[in-house]
Parts: sequence; structure tokens; C-alpha cells
Amino acid sequence: MTPKKILLVVCDGLSDRPVKQFDMKTPLQVARKPALDAIARHGINGTMDVIGPGIIPGSDTAHLALFGYDPHKVYTGRGPIEAVGAGIEMTKKDVAFRCNFATVDKSMHVTDRRAGRIGQGTDELAKAVSGIQIDGVRVILKEGSEHRCVLVLRGEGLDPRVSDVDPHRDGKVLLAEPIVPSAEKTAQVLNEFVKRANKILECHPVNKKRIAEGLPPANAILPRGAGGIGEIETLPQRYGMKCAAVAGVTLIKGICRLVGMDVPEVGGATGGLDTDYRAKADMALRLLDSYDFVFLNVKAADIAGHDGDFRIKVSVAENIDVMMGIILKDIHEDVVLALTCDHSTPVSVKEHSADPVPLSVSGGGGRVDGVREFDEISCASGALGRIRGTELMPILLGMADRARKFGA
Amino acid sequence: MTPKKILLVVCDGLSDRPVKQFDMKTPLQVARKPALDAIARHGINGTMDVIGPGIIPGSDTAHLALFGYDPHKVYTGRGPIEAVGAGIEMTKKDVAFRCNFATVDKSMHVTDRRAGRIGQGTDELAKAVSGIQIDGVRVILKEGSEHRCVLVLRGEGLDPRVSDVDPHRDGKVLLAEPIVPSAEKTAQVLNEFVKRANKILECHPVNKKRIAEGLPPANAILPRGAGGIGEIETLPQRYGMKCAAVAGVTLIKGICRLVGMDVPEVGGATGGLDTDYRAKADMALRLLDSYDFVFLNVKAADIAGHDGDFRIKVSVAENIDVMMGIILKDIHEDVVLALTCDHSTPVSVKEHSADPVPLSVSGGGGRVDGVREFDEISCASGALGRIRGTELMPILLGMADRARKFGA
Repeated sequence: MTPKKILLVVCDGLSDRPVKQFDMKTPLQVARKPALDAIARHGINGTMDVIGPGIIPGSDTAHLALFGYDPHKVYTGRGPIEAVGAGIEMTKKDVAFRCNFATVDKSMHVTDRRAGRIGQGTDELAKAVSGIQIDGVRVILKEGSEHRCVLVLRGEGLDPRVSDVDPHRDGKVLLAEPIVPSAEKTAQVLNEFVKRANKILECHPVNKKRIAEGLPPANAILPRGAGGIGEIETLPQRYGMKCAAVAGVTLIKGICRLVGMDVPEVGGATGGLDTDYRAKADMALRLLDSYDFVFLNVKAADIAGHDGDFRIKVSVAENIDVMMGIILKDIHEDVVLALTCDHSTPVSVKEHSADPVPLSVSGGGGRVDGVREFDEISCASGALGRIRGTELMPILLGMADRARKFGA
Repeated sequence: MTPKKILLVVCDGLSDRPVKQFDMKTPLQVARKPALDAIARHGINGTMDVIGPGIIPGSDTAHLALFGYDPHKVYTGRGPIEAVGAGIEMTKKDVAFRCNFATVDKSMHVTDRRAGRIGQGTDELAKAVSGIQIDGVRVILKEGSEHRCVLVLRGEGLDPRVSDVDPHRDGKVLLAEPIVPSAEKTAQVLNEFVKRANKILECHPVNKKRIAEGLPPANAILPRGAGGIGEIETLPQRYGMKCAAVAGVTLIKGICRLVGMDVPEVGGATGGLDTDYRAKADMALRLLDSYDFVFLNVKAADIAGHDGDFRIKVSVAENIDVMMGIILKDIHEDVVLALTCDHSTPVSVKEHSADPVPLSVSGGGGRVDGVREFDEISCASGALGRIRGTELMPILLGMADRARKFGA
């Protein structure tokens, strides 16, 4: 049997709960979505606890689970995921941190954790401190969106088990503490870096200009969320597949790179409500020509959920439907196509929730059940039953004739 | 999001199998039960393997699972559960035993394991032996229903891993043996207690009177089912919820107290077929005013199942329906209401069975599937799918917006 290709489409936070004002329906139940329903109708359907029953997934842990990794084992803090997302190639010995550019006073008291949500000039500030060496450890700093940046420490004898420097609110900048004895060096280097960065940033032209304009200077870096990537076995190593991803959000890109996917830039894929759905569809189709496994993430529904906006969420569902319509028009019938969500973000909750997500898998000559619509309730009566996130990848590999045999 | 309250209603043993003489229906399928069906119709439904597929649950292990504990880890014999149920406050170092008052001859041969099902005077007999000290260990003995009592050993250096004294049939009273070396002291104290208790009970006025009346004297105590409570983390500790229970049966009360619930006395809640359903409903509603999590157990269906009486079981289901009707009339729509059983007790088996139990969860703005009736078959096609008992609590917490997030 020739192994088939797989396209996994994840609609971030699209799954929801019924809303009273909308006739006890979910946004998916209200949206006009012929393409999404066609996927349900031509395939098998189910629901999925992405991490486990009653556990609210983060987008990071959820995607690790969807890619077949036990997040309880491989998730070591958000730092490494952000670092890889920012384009830094992590090695196994690196320790990475998420950071804010912040404003501190002379006695290292935080007066603004986001330095007035500084957006301009953080690339120059990052360049000014990146590359310095402390105790044989090289510091890599890379700017992110707004006030955010990523710090990677590279050298021998590092251990990510250190406490945060970021006080997480206004107050004195904390000294990183080793949580285990083997992290002592890491804590020392980190504390020394925070001190030196403050000295360098204090007198940087970008900050001088900000002060002259009455803006809070970005004169400190506050690391948090330390982690290392450890011994993660990539998807290509694990399954012998060439893998690629279409995603707009840094965090998701980071996870995709971490598990060994190629992540080409897609013009117009913003990770926002204004993302270019056609560009994403075209890129996914193009990647299916040369890759075995293609992953496509659309962030917009999660944003509508966090905003608690039912109508916007319906329109996002309909935009996703247009995108999937473009894909369905040209996708080869042998491709196993999975459509699901990484978690629910109910508009009534405005946050991620533990409600299971709908799942439809069609194509590749697989089974077809009687489900006719893609939504939280219809899918629940399908032939896939209720599965766990970590079971999705094995199921897709099985349907794509890529599974391994156990026994004779 | 404001966390919602949770009401968990467990109909002990109500779940059943179809019976040929009743048109291949189960008692639940025959009963008139508008309130139970309304819960199914306005919520999501499923079936549940309370312990695991093909494992026949005891009421004790089942309830531990329903409260979110892995019974394979926390269940250390029925002794501690009975002790807590009898109102003895167990400490972590205590070892508890279920016991029978029994009749033995001069050579400690058991002639009646239940001392003629003695009902009167066991409180006096218990008082006569309770409080004695052996080797620095204090003995606490408390009477139960009929010939039953509970023994707690309190002191340093005890270990519950000892064999039973109770021979479980007529025959010589056994010597407790340590199963591990660290339980040697416990076995010695236990054996010494059994000897001394025999001496004290032998000449007790209650027994002299029994002998005079031609009744077998309760002149021995036969401990079995040793266990300790270990390091159980209570529900309030684990989930930050104030928890209360409405239950009539000692065993169930014991488990509820063990996991940190308040268990107020309910007049008329007997744990029998004659229990006061209205009193239970009223108490559950009242507790919901001041508690986050309320648990309500009805024992009667299990009794009808053990008796193999289909008609009585139908009428119990209809009584439970009346009780739930009272609750539905006054319950706040934001309360997450779960209706299920701890195990099946099919009238065709007259014992607990491993058949999964029906489960309906409504309220709290949660999802609604197409199931219209609360019974073993209808619920099985619902959106909850087939879950495990230990997953129920996380699912309810998720629906009540009390779940924890993992990741970002």
C-alpha cells in the first residue's frame, strides 16, 4: 500500500458552547459552512479531549498533543517554543526564556512591565545586548512583537530549572534562584546578564530618544518561563515524513519548528482576524505537492472567542469555510484530511475551556459515518468516538497507511 | 468567568440489564420518569465505566472513582472507610478494621460469625472494650448496624499490612500475621486485643442475659479488612471547593468524610427503600446555597437489584424521579447537574455487575445533545461518549469553569 499524504487543519479555539441569545446554538451551528460540512459528511467524526478530560489546554501544549507528543513529558516552559518561533535554532543544551522589555528605576524597581508597549526600536535594543559573553556562556536576544523578546543562553553546564527574574507585576526585579543545585551557574549568568543589559540599555540612543519624547525607556529585560528543548524526537525522525506548516502566529511556528516541520513564510498570514485565508489555502495545497504531512493553523476564531464576540466568530467560521472550499476543490482524494481545533474558546467564557473539540477526518479511502455537519454536537455522534489529542496522530497515520505493525 | 456550582446525584445500583419478562427492557426503560428524562434532554449524555471496562465496582471504590480518586491507589481496605463512616476521626497513623461481633467456644472456635445477628446491646459491648491500651496503642471500638463494629488502633509504629483475624466462616479464630516486617507490632497488638476482648465480653452482663435467653453470646470480635487512610488529599484541598454530601448509608458517609465533605444528618434518609426522598431533595437544595459541590446518594435501587425485584426497582426509579423533580423545580440554571450510578446491580444478577452506567450532565450553559431519555441505552448515543469514573470529576469541573489550564 502506498503511504498517503496528510493535511491537518486546526482552527484555533473555534470550538464553543451553546449561547442562549442565539437559540442555544454554538457559532459553528449557526455559520453557513458547506465545505466544513462536506468534510464531516464524507468522513468519520468524533470529539477529542486535546490534553485530557477536564484539562484546559494552552495552545502550546495542545499543539504538542495534536502532533503526538505527551505534553506532560516534553513541555518544559514556553521559552524554547517562543525562541524557536522567533527563528533561533535551539540546541539541546540551550536554555531559553520569554522576556519583556520593561522600564525600571535606578534601584531596579519595575515601573512599567511593558515599557509603554514599545513597538519601535526593539530590534536595535536587542542587537545591542545580543552576543555578549558571560562566564563562557553566549547570550542571544531577539525581539518579538511589541515589548516582547526572547533570550537564549548557550554554553556548557546550563540547566533550565531557575526561577523567574520577571516579578510579573510592578515591584523589584527578582534575582533568579536555582531550583536545583545544577542550575546555579544558569542563575548566576542570568542575573549578571540582567544587570549588564540594564547598563547597556540605559544609555542606548533608542531610549534617550524615548525619554526626550516623554516615553518610558525600555531599559531592562525581564526573563521568565525558562526551558530547554531536551531530547525531542522530531516528526520526520519519528515517522519518516517530510513535514511543513502554514501558520501566522509566532508561538505556533515555534512548536512546528521544534517538532521538525518546515515553516515557510506566507504573505498575508498574520495570525489575526485579517489573515489572508486564500494565501493559506494556496500555500497548503502547494506544500502538499512536496511534503508528506502538512499542518495548517488558523488563529482568528480564538481571538473572536477571547473577545466574546459570537457574530465575529460565526464570520471567522465562514471565512475558514471559504478557505477549506479552495482546498477541497484542488486536494487529491488520496490525502487524509483532518479538521479540528486545539481547544474550545467559548464566547461565553472568553477564555480557553476544557470542553472537547469536534474532529472530522475524510479522504484517503477511509470510512464514512452518518454525520452531516461539522460542529461540537454533530461530530460527537460519529464513528471516531471520543479520543485524546495524543491519539490523533497515530489515527491519521493509520488511515494514511503509515502506521507500524505490532506482531505477526 | 465565575465558577459554577456542581450537584452530583448518584443512584446506587440503578443501572441494569434488559429483562425478558419485561419486553427486554431495563427498569429505567420501563419507569415513568419525566424529571430524569428532562435532565438527559437538556444536557449531554454518555456511559461510564466507573472503575474500568469489565471491573465490577464496589460501592466504596466506585465512589472514590466518582470523586476523582484512583481507587487502585487510595483504597487500602474497607476498614478506614467504615471507621470514618461510623464517625471516628482517623489520623494518618491509625489502622482500622471492619469487625463482626461473633460467638466462639472455649477453644476460640467460631460457632456463629454474626452472634445470632445481635442487634441490641452492641453499644454496651463496644464501650466495655473500647479505650484499653496495649503496648502503647489505644483501642477504639464502635458498634455498627446489627452484628457489625469498627476497630481503630491508634499509636506509633503501626502498619495496616496484616492478615485477617476473621476466618470468614465457622472455624478457629485466626492469628493475624504481618504481611511485611514493619507490621509485626500491629499483628501482635491485634492478636492481644482479640484475646483480651474475649475475656471481657465473656462475662459481660449483655452476654449473660443472652445466654440466659438461649441466644448465642457476642463474646468475640473478628477484625478484617485492615487499612490506613494514608495521605489522601481532600476535595477542598485539591479543588478549592466547599463540599457537602447527602447520604444515608454509613459506608457512603464514610467515603464522603474521608474526602473532606461535610455530611449533615438528614432526618428520614435511611439508606433503605423507605428513605425520605423529599427530605433528601430539600437538603441538597439547601446545601447548594452555601456549598460549591454537593453530592447526593440514593441507596434504594441497589437494594431492589440485590433482591432481584424488577417491579420494586421500577418504583424506586419513579421515586428518584419525584426527588429530582423537586430539585429541578428550584435549582439555579447555572448549577452543573450530573445524574448517574455508581455501578449496575441487574435484577437478573442480584449482584453488582461490570456493565457501564448511564450518565447525564445538564445546566451551567453546557452543550446539549439529542438524547431524550435517561437510561442505559439512550445515554450511550450521547455526546459525552464512554468515559471512565475518574474522568467524571475533571469533566464536571471543566463544565463548571473550575478546571486548570496547562500551558499558555
